[in-house]
Amino acid sequence: MTLLEYIKGCRNRVDEQLKSILPDNSQVSVRLVEAMSYSVFNGGKRIRPILVYAASEAVGGQPAQADPAACSVELIHAYSLVHDDLPAMDDDDLRRGKPTCHKAFDEATAILAGDALQTLAFEALTSADHDLPDPVRLKLVRELAQASGYAGMCGGQSMDLNSVGSPLNQEQLQLMHSHKTGTLIRASVIMGALSSGHVESKQLTHLTRYADAIGLAFQVQDDILDVTADTEVLGKQQGADLALDKPTYVSLMGLDGARELAGSLCQQAIHSLESFGDRAKILRQMAEYVIQRSH
Amino acid sequence: MTLLEYIKGCRNRVDEQLKSILPDNSQVSVRLVEAMSYSVFNGGKRIRPILVYAASEAVGGQPAQADPAACSVELIHAYSLVHDDLPAMDDDDLRRGKPTCHKAFDEATAILAGDALQTLAFEALTSADHDLPDPVRLKLVRELAQASGYAGMCGGQSMDLNSVGSPLNQEQLQLMHSHKTGTLIRASVIMGALSSGHVESKQLTHLTRYADAIGLAFQVQDDILDVTADTEVLGKQQGADLALDKPTYVSLMGLDGARELAGSLCQQAIHSLESFGDRAKILRQMAEYVIQRSH
Repeated sequence: MTLLEYIKGCRNRVDEQLKSILPDNSQVSVRLVEAMSYSVFNGGKRIRPILVYAASEAVGGQPAQADPAACSVELIHAYSLVHDDLPAMDDDDLRRGKPTCHKAFDEATAILAGDALQTLAFEALTSADHDLPDPVRLKLVRELAQASGYAGMCGGQSMDLNSVGSPLNQEQLQLMHSHKTGTLIRASVIMGALSSGHVESKQLTHLTRYADAIGLAFQVQDDILDVTADTEVLGKQQGADLALDKPTYVSLMGLDGARELAGSLCQQAIHSLESFGDRAKILRQMAEYVIQRSH
Repeated sequence: MTLLEYIKGCRNRVDEQLKSILPDNSQVSVRLVEAMSYSVFNGGKRIRPILVYAASEAVGGQPAQADPAACSVELIHAYSLVHDDLPAMDDDDLRRGKPTCHKAFDEATAILAGDALQTLAFEALTSADHDLPDPVRLKLVRELAQASGYAGMCGGQSMDLNSVGSPLNQEQLQLMHSHKTGTLIRASVIMGALSSGHVESKQLTHLTRYADAIGLAFQVQDDILDVTADTEVLGKQQGADLALDKPTYVSLMGLDGARELAGSLCQQAIHSLESFGDRAKILRQMAEYVIQRSH
């Protein structure tokens, strides 16, 4: 199977799972559940679920064991995008070429849809439809919560917002990104491995190193795409971050420097998987995919 | 012990627990963790944690077993208030007599503080500091998630927002409130009982009936206070709901009708606890407290 076939398979799988989790109607508020579905099924790349499945495979887990984790990380990611796009945050009108949630619905609905998607991420880990052992589920809840909250994604997003107009140096930029996007990417890899029910702590250490490297590489590549890709391919305004005077790896290191960093992080990521053998093939390919993608 | 002494003891206990859970500093975003603490320690009544402890007691549980549930329901409540107060939602400047979170900080920080408080609620249930059995913790996560999301609190809040300017009838008003505030009050009672680790399904049925009755009574009393209490005592603008053309029990049934309904719900609640004996004394007193409070 090629990487692209694997990716397509994961996307279909997680989309089917997400469809079964997301409500298609409500006696309380149809508008809310429509906004939730709109925000989840909007052509997302599903990078995080793919990492969940690939990490599960790397430690010998089955895809069915990884389904709850795959759904929950994507729901957290979807909620964070809905809130990030709000007028009080990044104030984006477009997301992947379509109106953002608050544009397609309204601001209040977008706030609530984000809130309810976060809740659903945790509910997905407890669902009776899956038969993961309780201790595994609980580890997944803990990992997801620690990655998403003040010490993780929310903290990084807050640091990012507070940095507009007062550029961060490279160390601060790395701290910000390692939280804003890095912790959830790490959680995706760790949760995939934990889902298998049999992962050694040494394996978790290696996977953490892998995830931290590709998480950073992912962000560096985002910064590169912000200045090199067409608006149409990117699905958002090209140069948007530069226009906001947000610090980026390109503004700090130049385009060549950023490309070199991305390549070196990719190699670090691959190197950290040495002990896993063939089962980590997809994870290795994903490291390359992250820095080769065009959007 | 009088009810007021019990209430004071619970407030002190849960505040101490919340202090140990909430971060007092951050290397990522000090502003975010300050906004979180500001929103949790703002003179809240802690009704939901009190119900957790009282329900735990009603089935023979110990306060220490109920601590994680008590913290988590209060964190969900705190996050919901921060988001409800936002300009795009209820647009409130004051909460319990103090500037609302987005006034004291800024809108983006308030959105993120709410998000991170929700995450922390789920993290609190997984903390290694408590020794609840894994199956109990997982039931608590599930109960909290189901009560807070699209089918619970968020759904009710969305229904409420969509009703401004197009008054609900009494049945719709009840559906809205049973979700917006009722599901979290029910979760508080159920989670308190579940925390004990030994609750019978028949007991859960009785406790659910109790919780649904006091949840509704609580809302009816809120509507009564909106038109009868001083702005100073209430901590928010008196008549605020009427001014927004929001449907209330008072606007639908008149003040006397609303008072009669509150009293009858209180009696229903007390009646549903018949089989519990002396251990449910506090729950019974809480039913009366809910409709007698002045703010």
